[in-house]
Amino acid sequence: MAKTSTPKGFRDFNPLETSRRKYIFNTIESVFQLYAYHAIETPAMENLSTLTGKYGEEGDKLLFKVLNSGDYLSKLGEDELISRHSSRLTPKIADKGLRYDLTVPFARYVVEHQHEITFPFKRYQIQPVWRADRPQKGRYREFYQCDVDVIGSDSLLNEVELIQIISDVFGKLGVEVTIKLNNRKLLLGIVEAIGESDKFIDITVAIDKLDKIGIENVVLELEKKELKTEAIEKLKSVLSDQSESNSSRIELVKKLAGHTENGQKGVEEIESIIQSLEQLKLESSVKTDLTLARGLNYYTGAIFEVVANDVQIGSICGGGRYDDLTGIFGLKDVSGVGISFGADRIYDVLQELNLFPEEKESATQLFFVNFGEKEAAFCLPLLQEVRKAGVSCELYPSAAKMKKQMSYADKLNIPYVLMIGEEEMNTGLFTLKNMQSGEQKKLNLSEIINEIKAE
Amino acid sequence: MAKTSTPKGFRDFNPLETSRRKYIFNTIESVFQLYAYHAIETPAMENLSTLTGKYGEEGDKLLFKVLNSGDYLSKLGEDELISRHSSRLTPKIADKGLRYDLTVPFARYVVEHQHEITFPFKRYQIQPVWRADRPQKGRYREFYQCDVDVIGSDSLLNEVELIQIISDVFGKLGVEVTIKLNNRKLLLGIVEAIGESDKFIDITVAIDKLDKIGIENVVLELEKKELKTEAIEKLKSVLSDQSESNSSRIELVKKLAGHTENGQKGVEEIESIIQSLEQLKLESSVKTDLTLARGLNYYTGAIFEVVANDVQIGSICGGGRYDDLTGIFGLKDVSGVGISFGADRIYDVLQELNLFPEEKESATQLFFVNFGEKEAAFCLPLLQEVRKAGVSCELYPSAAKMKKQMSYADKLNIPYVLMIGEEEMNTGLFTLKNMQSGEQKKLNLSEIINEIKAE
Repeated sequence: MAKTSTPKGFRDFNPLETSRRKYIFNTIESVFQLYAYHAIETPAMENLSTLTGKYGEEGDKLLFKVLNSGDYLSKLGEDELISRHSSRLTPKIADKGLRYDLTVPFARYVVEHQHEITFPFKRYQIQPVWRADRPQKGRYREFYQCDVDVIGSDSLLNEVELIQIISDVFGKLGVEVTIKLNNRKLLLGIVEAIGESDKFIDITVAIDKLDKIGIENVVLELEKKELKTEAIEKLKSVLSDQSESNSSRIELVKKLAGHTENGQKGVEEIESIIQSLEQLKLESSVKTDLTLARGLNYYTGAIFEVVANDVQIGSICGGGRYDDLTGIFGLKDVSGVGISFGADRIYDVLQELNLFPEEKESATQLFFVNFGEKEAAFCLPLLQEVRKAGVSCELYPSAAKMKKQMSYADKLNIPYVLMIGEEEMNTGLFTLKNMQSGEQKKLNLSEIINEIKAE
Repeated sequence: MAKTSTPKGFRDFNPLETSRRKYIFNTIESVFQLYAYHAIETPAMENLSTLTGKYGEEGDKLLFKVLNSGDYLSKLGEDELISRHSSRLTPKIADKGLRYDLTVPFARYVVEHQHEITFPFKRYQIQPVWRADRPQKGRYREFYQCDVDVIGSDSLLNEVELIQIISDVFGKLGVEVTIKLNNRKLLLGIVEAIGESDKFIDITVAIDKLDKIGIENVVLELEKKELKTEAIEKLKSVLSDQSESNSSRIELVKKLAGHTENGQKGVEEIESIIQSLEQLKLESSVKTDLTLARGLNYYTGAIFEVVANDVQIGSICGGGRYDDLTGIFGLKDVSGVGISFGADRIYDVLQELNLFPEEKESATQLFFVNFGEKEAAFCLPLLQEVRKAGVSCELYPSAAKMKKQMSYADKLNIPYVLMIGEEEMNTGLFTLKNMQSGEQKKLNLSEIINEIKAE
């Protein structure tokens, strides 16, 4: 017999989960639209040549590859078959792969459609992505990203706008967050100022772990990478900084790296952003964080990361500026900046904090009891009336026992039940039961519609 | 350099296309919800054992298979590798496949979650499916299905409800359609009545082509299948029937096959449905059609198919009753009935008939011209106010030339442009330009918001 489970790392969503997910997507989308971003969609599959090499060696391994159709083995040589070299054979039997994120497909989209696009292009995209990661708690092989990017503008007003979007989204969802802000140029400036420019990647990788492993272990890691003692000391002053305000943290980096070109530019950028945020009274939710590096190498300016204040779950949104994302596809010098909301982690946060709105639990507002063929026939046009008024309703499809029907309405959390039997058919007054209070009333149809809509 | 195109048969959707697609999905979904159906989602990937054998031999070939991760070749024997037998090797290197439709994953879902589900289970599901079909005009390798099913109830009220849903969806979309209705039992009865029960499949396959190849060719095909002349003559009376009304068409089949068990049951069912439709004043849009067979073998009762009256594009919605869909997954005797809307074809119909609402073309309502750093800073809190009022707006991110900014607003079809320069900053009266009429007015912010919201 066929298996009846989903593959490992993949999930079904039942009606409650689906409606809660929709609530998250709709909230995020409504904010994106208020800020005048436009939705696009790209296909689930891309050519593997579009995807490979964009996510590092580890990322390439995590790409789901789709087997070519037809007789895909026929053209392979005997030697390469017998060699059993899976990763060398893969490109010959699989041309396509599943979307790993929304950023690379977006870059491909921009290059492909550059002549139809009006720049700056403000786009959003809410679609699933797939990664052949080892499944574990909170990590799935299929999950949604909600991306919003501006491409074709290097104005820092875009960075400010993205922070406003973050603030509005989590404000609407009721989640208190800290928006961490850094700038890749500050990191470059610091590394230059301490005389270790050639170890930039090693240093950012190490300090990115500060939260997880603590300062002593970061220092150990830097020593292993043979950083000069003096350089490490200077770095420590940044890493151990306990300043309370954005301005004092910026002052620190100014002193350390303000004389380097990158440091100066980075300070200018972050100060300009903070100034706009002050004007918008948003500064307090943003925390400049010089240890924020994020893995992705294509960031060149601002870097964002958002954490929930009351749930330990890691980053629930992140992004940054990339000066040359489309370069890999042949379109140079198009600067972009964007962020990505992790809908699945946001779901977990809302659940843990009990923040889902209650009305999401039942979509159906009115249940018609089915007393028999004649009564059901009488009800059909009434249901039509109720729906015309925008009220979601249903008639039980058979004249099952009252207890069974009431239990159905109850399990589905339907707030109102309508009973129309012989007597009600004669008088035109129908018995409406409020399932929460237990109260019953006799009303005509338009009174019933009004009562339900008033709720 | 990396390829910059989508794979063959896959499509990008630009903002206009995406918002039009959303319009279709939202319309369909709003109707599903009014009828008290609940959304579920299943993963893009299923175990291949769940999918194979469910869509016929041809369907198995059209499944997209996903290559296993890691060193998938290591366990294969030399002989099976050298044999280059692609279809025999596939199950050993690919465990998973992409969703081919929403019906089989739904059946799998029902069996897996049977103990959490309250039956009858009214579910809808709007998700993409993938088929490795040869791409051609109007046929894509990734397309959306919008499915709505009731499972766990054999009441014919469900069939009536699905017809109401079809009628409401296309009513809202403004498309005039014909809903074709048949019943698999009538087909069984007719075939039995003409004494050719063992040729049921051959006969339904042939008459299903009536629209395309005409009655003479159907007869030729039946002759090739060695049907008796007398049987063919009887069938011809059904195939050439030109009756105008549902009742006379039903009368015909009653005469021919009413004495068989299947024929009698089929007539009862279709008459009961028609009777309810008369009560709902929906009979005129439904046409009983004894030649409607549809390919899928799991239908056991009603069969639906919807065509647009004014566009030749084939079926835009279809479905039927299946008495034992979950049987393949080990759950017997659960009857279901459902339909599937083909969103991509509906898109083509709306486009051809010019039925997309105009307001879908631009989401942004108000554009702020950027006159410089000081003016932009002044505008930031105003934008916040405007968005708080629910009006979508944006500020051009840099103080580019006026002509460039206006051309941007124009290309994006933004209806209003706001100009705030030195003078406007002093007076608090801002210049609002209606982009369609060209009219300009000086207004304060709340007047501006009211003007735009009044539109």
